[in-house]
Amino acid sequence: MTGQAIDAVGIGNAIVDVLSQADDAFLDAQGLPKGAMTLIDAARAEELYAAMGAGIEMSGGSAANTMAGLASLGGQGAFIGKVRNDQLGGIFRHDIRANGLVFETPAATQGLPTARCLIFVTPDAQRTMNTFLGASIDLGPEDLDAEIIAGAKITYLEGYLWDAPPAKAAFVKAAQIAHEAGRRVALTLSDPFCVERHRDSFLELVEAHVDILFANETEICALYQAAGFDAALQQVRGHCEVAVLTRGDKGAVICAGEEIHVVDAQAVTRVVDTTGAGDLYAAGFLYGYTRGRSLFDCGQIGAIAAAEVISHFGARPEADLAALVEKRLGRT
Amino acid sequence: MTGQAIDAVGIGNAIVDVLSQADDAFLDAQGLPKGAMTLIDAARAEELYAAMGAGIEMSGGSAANTMAGLASLGGQGAFIGKVRNDQLGGIFRHDIRANGLVFETPAATQGLPTARCLIFVTPDAQRTMNTFLGASIDLGPEDLDAEIIAGAKITYLEGYLWDAPPAKAAFVKAAQIAHEAGRRVALTLSDPFCVERHRDSFLELVEAHVDILFANETEICALYQAAGFDAALQQVRGHCEVAVLTRGDKGAVICAGEEIHVVDAQAVTRVVDTTGAGDLYAAGFLYGYTRGRSLFDCGQIGAIAAAEVISHFGARPEADLAALVEKRLGRT
Repeated sequence: MTGQAIDAVGIGNAIVDVLSQADDAFLDAQGLPKGAMTLIDAARAEELYAAMGAGIEMSGGSAANTMAGLASLGGQGAFIGKVRNDQLGGIFRHDIRANGLVFETPAATQGLPTARCLIFVTPDAQRTMNTFLGASIDLGPEDLDAEIIAGAKITYLEGYLWDAPPAKAAFVKAAQIAHEAGRRVALTLSDPFCVERHRDSFLELVEAHVDILFANETEICALYQAAGFDAALQQVRGHCEVAVLTRGDKGAVICAGEEIHVVDAQAVTRVVDTTGAGDLYAAGFLYGYTRGRSLFDCGQIGAIAAAEVISHFGARPEADLAALVEKRLGRT
Repeated sequence: MTGQAIDAVGIGNAIVDVLSQADDAFLDAQGLPKGAMTLIDAARAEELYAAMGAGIEMSGGSAANTMAGLASLGGQGAFIGKVRNDQLGGIFRHDIRANGLVFETPAATQGLPTARCLIFVTPDAQRTMNTFLGASIDLGPEDLDAEIIAGAKITYLEGYLWDAPPAKAAFVKAAQIAHEAGRRVALTLSDPFCVERHRDSFLELVEAHVDILFANETEICALYQAAGFDAALQQVRGHCEVAVLTRGDKGAVICAGEEIHVVDAQAVTRVVDTTGAGDLYAAGFLYGYTRGRSLFDCGQIGAIAAAEVISHFGARPEADLAALVEKRLGRT
């Protein structure tokens, strides 16, 4: 651990992304639902990789991307997640530490290899993800570092992990540790299909344990089985302290009790790859929140971080986000 | 093997690149000679990786990059090089096959892991490379596929491999197989330090076995211990059938017997990363050459391919090079 106080600790899947360009015909031929995250097993991962074009590899994982964004903004983050002691696991560990994050979860020494996500980016900049969870699903309550969680202002949970049963127990335990220490718990719903798979338990989790909820439009509609965004918005109000609802280029709506803000998206010259947009929006929001900024400012910082990450390939920031925010919003 | 005739087979190091941005102060602190390729051992690779920022991984290797470029131009290429049967080796094999290349060299099942090259890209777009050769150095004469070499119009040898003793024997054997089949042998000098290390044996190789020599300005000057480009140019004339001498943004000079051409560099809006510039120039030249284009056209195709690869991160083309060439030069 560093001596510095931790702003946020992310708990999520420890994944290496494999990115490649593809066209719609490829997605159709492979039966891949565009824009979604599909879970795949080892055999399907091998089959799909064989059909994939030449790729580039980068560390990924939703909560890990968010923590990398937080670090680029100047925050101190930590990450808890499971890799295997293999080459991809070594890459994941190197990159997250090189970003200045605390990452101490021991690698699995047996079982499945480090998780990977095969990401197909279509010419419209949409990303279609196929995740082989591998060693990620071995994360359990025993992997939680109670000292880090109790010391972090916010514990940030990635909804994707809800697909892995031992991780559910880890989530609930992490929330308890955080709340007993007087800290806040945040959750991102991650994916509409993930919400569909686990709607009841997500509703229970939100009700019982979550202070700050992150969701995009389709996810929040899926959670409440709402016909449209406004209907979902009415439902979420009052169910958690803060709800951060993102809508792509339509901007975001942030509500907290009676307070509600509409924050526009930041202009982007050319959208290249939307992978990581939600992850980086959350990074910006959490950075502002842990720095005591207004909810509107938190939303603006989120929008700036998301705009940066969609302007290039990959789900982690390339630019110095702290400098970008200072340029756009000033240091106040 | 595919049923298609092979235009060129590259023989070189099978390497996965790890790219990261760095500043000059970092290079100084680590004692890295800017712009060069330095060979490092496993311990130094680990130490340098620990100091490196978060990276992205892409398949690389000089001759392999050239063959990937040839494929993107519409040529049929093959590659011979050694990986280990590990995750990085799997990535290398996947990517080169996904590019449409024939790659059948069996992976090593023991010994050092797959080679990697830690590449630091400075804000001036220069790349400084640090190569841990790993399993690459196990390539020997027994790995040569005589059928592929005898069937390929050109056998293209990467000078970097000259650092690995068993590969020297493989080079000479490959050149003999090619020449016995009435084919052409090409060599790229790869790096001035590599030339310094092996000047005498390179001179002998060029004299005895090489028909087409690729070198940049510093490499050809190093080979002939020439004070300047023109002096080196006078020396190389007559020592091989064709010499392709690249000079970065000053363009290239191509000489073959009495024939000599000066080919300008293609304009690039913004140079991002010069990694692979020489490799892709060679790709363009070889594509044109195997298609019977004029030497001047071969140089132009090389310049187009090089301009594409320096306009983004990484040493393999992102754009469809065949389409780029058609746009610039027409189909003739």
